This record gives sequence, structure tokens and C-alpha cells, in this order.
Amino acid sequence: MAKILIIGGVAGGASAAARARRLSESAEIIMFERGPFVSFANCGLPYHIGGDIKDRAKLLLQTPESFLSRFNVDVRVMNEVISIQREAKTVTVKNLLDDTEYTESYDFLLLSPGASPVVPPIPGIDNPLTFSLRNIPDMDKILTSIKHNQPKHATVIGGGFIGLEMMEAFHQLGIETALVEMADQVMTPVDKEMAGFVHQEIRAKDIDLRLGVALQSAEFQAAADDAERGALTLQLSNGESLNTELLIMAIGVRPETTLARATGLRIGELGGIWVNDEMQTSDPFIYAVGDAIEEKDFLTGKQTVVPLAGPANRQGRMAADNMLGAHETYQGTQGTAICKVFDLAVASTGKNEKQLKRDEMAYEKVYVHTASHASYYPGAEVVSLKLLFSPESGKILGAQAIGKDGIDKRIDILAVAQRAGMTVEQLQHVELTYAPPYGSAKDVINQAAFVATNVMKGDVNGIHYDALANLTADQVLLDVRNPGELESVGTFPGAINIPVDQLRGRMNELPKDKEIIVACQVGLRGNVAYRQLANSGFIVKNLIGGYRTWKTSQC
Amino acid sequence: MAKILIIGGVAGGASAAARARRLSESAEIIMFERGPFVSFANCGLPYHIGGDIKDRAKLLLQTPESFLSRFNVDVRVMNEVISIQREAKTVTVKNLLDDTEYTESYDFLLLSPGASPVVPPIPGIDNPLTFSLRNIPDMDKILTSIKHNQPKHATVIGGGFIGLEMMEAFHQLGIETALVEMADQVMTPVDKEMAGFVHQEIRAKDIDLRLGVALQSAEFQAAADDAERGALTLQLSNGESLNTELLIMAIGVRPETTLARATGLRIGELGGIWVNDEMQTSDPFIYAVGDAIEEKDFLTGKQTVVPLAGPANRQGRMAADNMLGAHETYQGTQGTAICKVFDLAVASTGKNEKQLKRDEMAYEKVYVHTASHASYYPGAEVVSLKLLFSPESGKILGAQAIGKDGIDKRIDILAVAQRAGMTVEQLQHVELTYAPPYGSAKDVINQAAFVATNVMKGDVNGIHYDALANLTADQVLLDVRNPGELESVGTFPGAINIPVDQLRGRMNELPKDKEIIVACQVGLRGNVAYRQLANSGFIVKNLIGGYRTWKTSQC
Repeated sequence: MAKILIIGGVAGGASAAARARRLSESAEIIMFERGPFVSFANCGLPYHIGGDIKDRAKLLLQTPESFLSRFNVDVRVMNEVISIQREAKTVTVKNLLDDTEYTESYDFLLLSPGASPVVPPIPGIDNPLTFSLRNIPDMDKILTSIKHNQPKHATVIGGGFIGLEMMEAFHQLGIETALVEMADQVMTPVDKEMAGFVHQEIRAKDIDLRLGVALQSAEFQAAADDAERGALTLQLSNGESLNTELLIMAIGVRPETTLARATGLRIGELGGIWVNDEMQTSDPFIYAVGDAIEEKDFLTGKQTVVPLAGPANRQGRMAADNMLGAHETYQGTQGTAICKVFDLAVASTGKNEKQLKRDEMAYEKVYVHTASHASYYPGAEVVSLKLLFSPESGKILGAQAIGKDGIDKRIDILAVAQRAGMTVEQLQHVELTYAPPYGSAKDVINQAAFVATNVMKGDVNGIHYDALANLTADQVLLDVRNPGELESVGTFPGAINIPVDQLRGRMNELPKDKEIIVACQVGLRGNVAYRQLANSGFIVKNLIGGYRTWKTSQC
Repeated sequence: MAKILIIGGVAGGASAAARARRLSESAEIIMFERGPFVSFANCGLPYHIGGDIKDRAKLLLQTPESFLSRFNVDVRVMNEVISIQREAKTVTVKNLLDDTEYTESYDFLLLSPGASPVVPPIPGIDNPLTFSLRNIPDMDKILTSIKHNQPKHATVIGGGFIGLEMMEAFHQLGIETALVEMADQVMTPVDKEMAGFVHQEIRAKDIDLRLGVALQSAEFQAAADDAERGALTLQLSNGESLNTELLIMAIGVRPETTLARATGLRIGELGGIWVNDEMQTSDPFIYAVGDAIEEKDFLTGKQTVVPLAGPANRQGRMAADNMLGAHETYQGTQGTAICKVFDLAVASTGKNEKQLKRDEMAYEKVYVHTASHASYYPGAEVVSLKLLFSPESGKILGAQAIGKDGIDKRIDILAVAQRAGMTVEQLQHVELTYAPPYGSAKDVINQAAFVATNVMKGDVNGIHYDALANLTADQVLLDVRNPGELESVGTFPGAINIPVDQLRGRMNELPKDKEIIVACQVGLRGNVAYRQLANSGFIVKNLIGGYRTWKTSQC
């Protein structure tokens, strides 16, 4: 009869407990959680603050009581494991309610402690109006501060998932909001030119977006009558200051490894608990899962740290399997992720261009912008997709998509295609659901695969948005959009304009001794013009992703 | 300089023309269309009738003029190719506007004539109030009839895509509607127990749904003052009659092969034009694509006839490649399809159970019903998914999904997974976008893969809905739902009830010498109870898909 102790009662830990019980009716399973709640919906916290999820109780997916009755798991909230005796295979537990300590033995131990918000030692940051958001008590504190202090202005530091979600929550509550991000873009899983869409959306909602700016200090002025109320003055790295009444620190999380380090478990180079493919730490009787660990990157096979709920859940399930005798192996993390930013969805899978450059991996990329479903059926929205692939093998390296409709679908499709090892050539043939309300006979995915395959085969000589800044006297930028579009949408500086439908009759206006850079709105008509010119003996390149990609890269 | 003639100017033909021009600026390309329009949105026709697509012009994606200016394609509408002289490599064309005939030579000929509605020789069917819907003139006739005759009642014969879409269109127009289908289910790409969801939805909208009923005759009574107005009396195979004022025949389409047959091209066993993997007919200078052909089934490699727009478009593109020197090969059709039926989406890919049985292929199946996104976030709807897979290899054979949200996404994911050759074991690991508005940390797809893998490994002994009709005295049906659910949702006849959360304490109420069939609402708690009982030495099976699948199979 195996005795399994689980440290941490949220995603990975809770999944492991339920799975272990399904596998074994006789195992003794104890789950320790130092907080007051287990198995809560941490991804839902910003949405309760913003009011989308009205009922706080909905965030509590399981209780100690429900775990006991359904899974016969002994759940001990407000119980913190403070040390592990690996030789003796025991843990020392502190009951945080009465400060008593006791010991539990184990056959197998699972660490699922999660990650903690990174809060740098910024002067003045420890004040009654500054919060991070990781669990239910954090959420309750923010809600209390909103109720008590009635802020008219809030500031979020950090433009990642939680930062963006909190920005939206405050906006929904009618609180004027500033978003301060140290990098030159929000949402780092996507590349900067794609993040431009997000920046546009954020500014369109009157958020005070400050990029490339860090918080340097905070100063709290308490209200005359109440030390918990008041306001903050923030000093920023660009010399500006900002008056605010609620400050959220959301610059990131780091693996919670205190206990693992103290007990001498191997820590990876990236600062997470090291595990093998079976989710086993350097001690074979101790497993670890979730945000606290380093896991295998799907694409590179290297260690990575990916604090996401999906992998945590599947790792927890797998750790339970393996503690109870199986040898399931983790197949690597792609980092598939999505974030709602007002009306936009922003999603990605695999590697982005920044990572590929850093890892010195060869890549090619294409951009397509096309309707989420048949454009003649109401409700179609543009899907902007960036697809990264290997120029040698054609395999998918990563993908990013942004838009108001069908974004999750496209990235899910590409995440599965990447995991299956599909090439862009094979991706051309995928056969997706099509009826006017749902898709197109040639879906975004097929179109991206067509363009990528054209690039692979050399059927198109592409050029990217960033090259437009450095055109030489031997290059001509040819805009093949209609004059009406140029007026309504905007122009490329220095471009000449011949609409694609007139090009065949006006080719004589173009020089044969210069390189013609063809550009249209999204790249599709550009390709038609490119083919005409290339087949007619011109030296030509097509601007992949067209005006839309170029313009957004500047946002 | 190649001269390419294309017969048929819609999906496959139009794609081929555009692609051929992109590949060659010098090719001579002529496209013949016997109707008045090319490249129209045939999938949008029902939506214009129903009013969702207000502007008729939106259905006309390209015109002869736009094809000429953009692609230098000579488009000849109202020009019908009436014969092919293969030896001479010429076609004879009839100009339908002036009844003159002329000849054109070709280097390559592409047949993309589409399919025609099947209208059986039912007595009285040739009347002013009976229509089928395949093109813009058909649509215009139906709209004229509605305007002129002001029908209060319409009848649709056939519950496939067009039949269902026309049913919805009439309903939107406030016309009382009957849907008559000869089979025992609508939407044959899904299996009958899944179609039950559609039947429920149709009936909930007060459509007069008649299953297992055929049309035997129609009798037209003209209005006293107008031979184009009036009413119809329909005699049905069940002896009933139906008074209606507009009749749509939508029982299916058959490949248009008149010209191919007349010119001696090989016709396949299923009645479509035979082509090889390069879309070449039995004459190497003649290619064929789209609804008129027999193509390779992705799963079986056998010939199949799949009249869908996605494959037609990709085949047209490929035929152009190959006419101009490439050797691209078609990778087979899965038959991925989707239909909107009021608030539901109904989608499928690969083979259904009926087809697998007919082809005598070994299969296993699972059903899952789970939320389209995090259930605590507003707007989550149940996704009902059926996954068919090979019990030997674990490969995906087919999938069907029905629900109000996220259906296209799930079937697209499974279509890509099937095409990539993924097994259900591998499908467990797919990493999909998750944030509360879009998905779940354990998505429907992961859950279905978990259940399927449990079945593959023998970790669960499943039983299906249809077995409940034949339980023996040696079997006990144990409903583990809560008493409140039984009251609100309904009960299984003859089941005993022990809620899953009480089961551990009440196992002594169950016999060890009988087989216990565990059932819950969707199969998830059933699995928990199953594991408890199996691990405690009971003989047990779990009802896969639970009450929801069983109940729907009877609708």
C-alpha cells in the first residue's frame, strides 16, 4: 500500500491526487497546502476582479471535503511542509493554524509548489496599495483595496498574461489604468511586430501604455484618517512620475524551489527543480510537476521553464501514473498560450523569432492576414498569423496569431501540427471544417502553408517589413493596392503605385535593371503581381504580410 | 506557350485558372462556364435567402472582368462545352446567348463541372413551386417564388447540408417549415446517436421534422388568378400528406459526368470521373477536379466521392501545378465538414461508425461531453465529441462533434491529428491554447484522448449506450449521479442510485457476483466510480458518454 504525499493542492497537485486514487483504491494520499484553498481556478482570478465571473464560489473547483468524499484524499490546508528528510522518507509539516509541527512518512513525494510572483526590491514597494495576484487571498486583498480605497487610477507593472488581464479588469471597473512594461512590447511570447496589434488595441481603450519603462520607486501617502487608504507616487525609469491609487506587480513568476533547494534536490540551470522525463527529481522517490520545475522543450529538447496550467495538469496526472508503477514519459512543452486583451485574442505556440535568433536556429517566416471565416458571411474578422518554419526541413518551429475571432483555433491547429512533426508542405493539405459561418474553403492555415511552401521552393522571393527601412537606390517599392485604399488605409513612404489589375498593361513603367519590391495590403495581391513581374523577367521581391505587417510593426 | 481550357468557373475551375496564371504569364487560359456567373459563393446561397447575407453582390466573388484584369483569364460565361475531340485536342463550345458553336484547341483541358442535384422522377415534382439550390439562378428563382407566392409553409426534402441550411433560412423568414428525411437521421456524416442532438434542436425550433419518410408525389393547385402561385399537396411514404407552398428538393448531388462519359473518359465505380493522384483523368491531357470526380479517401486509400469546397479548391490549384509541369499528388480526402443548424454546429472528419462497419474496419469509440471553455467563465457550452479509433494501432479513424461553441476548433484539431497519423496515446499530449475564455487546462481533446487511451490499455472496461437495452439479470445498472440530477435531468430505467461521493461507504450494497454497469451524466464520475469498484474487486463496466449519450441516442 503506497503512501503518497503531495505538496501543493492546485493544478498539478490536485490532478495527481485524483489520478492516483483512480489508479489505486488502497494508496494513502495526503495533500498539503499552505494556503487556505485547494484546486482553485487561479486563471480565473482577474476575471472575478473585473466582474466577468460574478460568483467567487465558482473559483473554488474542489474543497477538502469534496476531495475526501470523491477521492478519499486527506487534504490539509494551512499545512506547510517545512522540511524533507530524504533518508528517512519523512516530511515535517507545520500546521499554520496552531503553529504545531508533526511528521509524515512517505513512499513517494510529489512537489507541486508552483511559482511565486517576482517582486524586485524597489524602494517603497512594500505599501498597503501594492499587490501581486497569484491566489485567492491575493485576489481578496485587491478586491478589499478597491472597495475601501475606491481608486480612480490603477497601475499595472508588467505586460504579460496577468498584467494584461488585470489591466482589462480595472478598465472594466471604470478605473483609469496605466500599463508599464520594461520591454519594448507587451506579451513577450509573440514577436514585437505582432505585439503591435496589441499595443493598438490597448491604446484604443485609452489605457496609458508605457513601453520601455521600468518602475524605480513608489511613495505612499496615507489618507489623513486611514493608514490603509491613500495614494502612490511612482517614479519611472524615463524620469516621469505617475500618481496612482492601486499598484499591481505582474512582472513575472519564478519557480518556488525553497524546499527543493533546502533538501538538496538538483536545481536546473534556469532555476527550476530538475526532473527527468518521468517527472522524477534527482531523488527517485520524489517527483515534481508544474510551475516549479524545468521541463523539456518540445522543439529543442533543452530544459525550459513554462508556468502554464495545461502542462502542469498533464504532468500531475503522469507523475501519479509513474509513482504507481508506470513509466510514462513527458513529451515536451511547446508553450502554447493565449491571452484575451479586450476584443483581441493573442496566441502562440512553439518558438518565437526572438528565441530562434537567440538559439541560433535557422528559420524562415511568413505572415498572412485573412478572414476568420467566409468574408461574405457576417462577423468575419481578420486573423493575423505569423508562421515560423525550418528552411531545411520545412517543419513548423512556431506560430503566433492575433485577432478578434478564431485565434485559439488556428494556434491549436498549428500546435497539433507542430507536435505531429508536420512540414509546411504537408500543412497545405490539411482539410479543415468549412461552412461560411466557421471558415473558408482555403483557410488561413492553408494559405500560410501555401505561402511558406512557395518560399521553401523558391517560388516566391520574399522580403520582410523591416527591410523597407533600408531600401537602396537600386530598389523600387511598388504598391499594387488601389488608390482608394492608399487614401483610406495609408501609404508606404517612397512607393510608386500601380494597381495590380492595371499592372499587366503598365509594366513598361518599371525598370528592368532595378529590384522591384512589390507590396499590397496583406501580401496576396502582391504575390499575383510578383508572379506577373517575375514571369516577365523583372527582378522582384514580394513584401510578405504587406502593409498590414509593416504598419503594425511600428505600433 | 501552353493553352489551357477550363470547363466550369466555380471553386475548382476558378482556383486552377488563378494558379495557372501565377505560374505562367505566357499560358493562354480560357475558362468556360455555362451559367451566367463564375466564382460565386455557392456555400452562401442559403444564407442570402435566409437574410444573413443581405447583399446579393457579396456572393459574386469574381467577375469575368476581374478575372481578366487580374489574371488575364478569358472567361466565357453562358458558353457550354458540348463535346471534346480528344484526338484533335479540341472542344466544341456552344454560346448559349446566340446558339452559335465554335471550336477551341487545347494543350491541357481541366474538367470542373461540379455536381447536379439529384431529383428523382417523383410524380408531380415538375411544378412551379419546386426548386433545388445549386447556383445563383436557382437562388434567384426561390427568392422570386417567396416574394411572389408569399408562402406560409415550406417543405424541405433531405436533411443534408443544403436541406438543413434551407430549413433554417425559411425559419428565419418566419415561414412554417417541414423537413422530410428518408433516413432515420439528418446529417448523415455523423452517426445517429449524435444526430439526436440535431433532432432535438430542430424540434425545439418548431420545425415539423419527419424522419424515415420519403416524398411519393406532389400535386400542384394553381391559384385561380396566377399559374405561378398556388399550393402543393405532398403525399408521403408513411401515408400522410402535407400541404405546402414551397418545396425544396435537397436529397443530394451526383457528379456531373455527361461530357466525360460522352468523350469516353474513365468513370469510377462510384459514378464520378476517375482521376489519378495528380488529378489526371484516363486521358493524360485532361485533368478533372471537384465535385465531379472520384478522389482518394485519406483513410482507406479507396476511391470516394466528396462534394466539398475545400478539396475542390486545393485540387484545382494542384491540377494547375501539374498541367504546368509539376507532379504534385493529392493526399486524400478526409471529408471534414461542418454545418450550422440554428444554434448548433455539427461537424465531423474521417469515417463515421456506419462507414467503418460497412467497410468492416475494426474500431473502438469513446464519447465525451465537456465544456467548450473553463466552466467558471461565462459562455461555456457543452462540446459533445465522439472519437473513433483503431483498437490495434490507436490511430484516429474519425470524429464527430456537436454543440454551440468551439465545435469547428475541435474537429479541425482532430482532422489535423488524423492526417498527421497521430494515435490517441499521442493525442493525450497535445498542448492547446488555454485561458478561461477559450479553453480548459484539460481540453475536450485531451479528455477524449485520456478516455480512449484508457480503453486501449484496458484501464477501463467500457460499455456503450445501446447495450443498456439488453441488460441481463446478471447485470446491475448503478447510477452514480446525485438524486437532484435524477429529478432534473431524468433517470435510467431500472437503475439503482448511489452518488459517487457516497460510494466508498456503500459498496456493501452492491453484489460481487454480478456485473455492475456504472453510469453518470457524461462518463467522468462514472470513471471515478468504476475505478473504485474495479480496484475493490467488483466486476464492473463504465457507460462511456453517460446519460447524455444514451438519452440523445433516442431523440
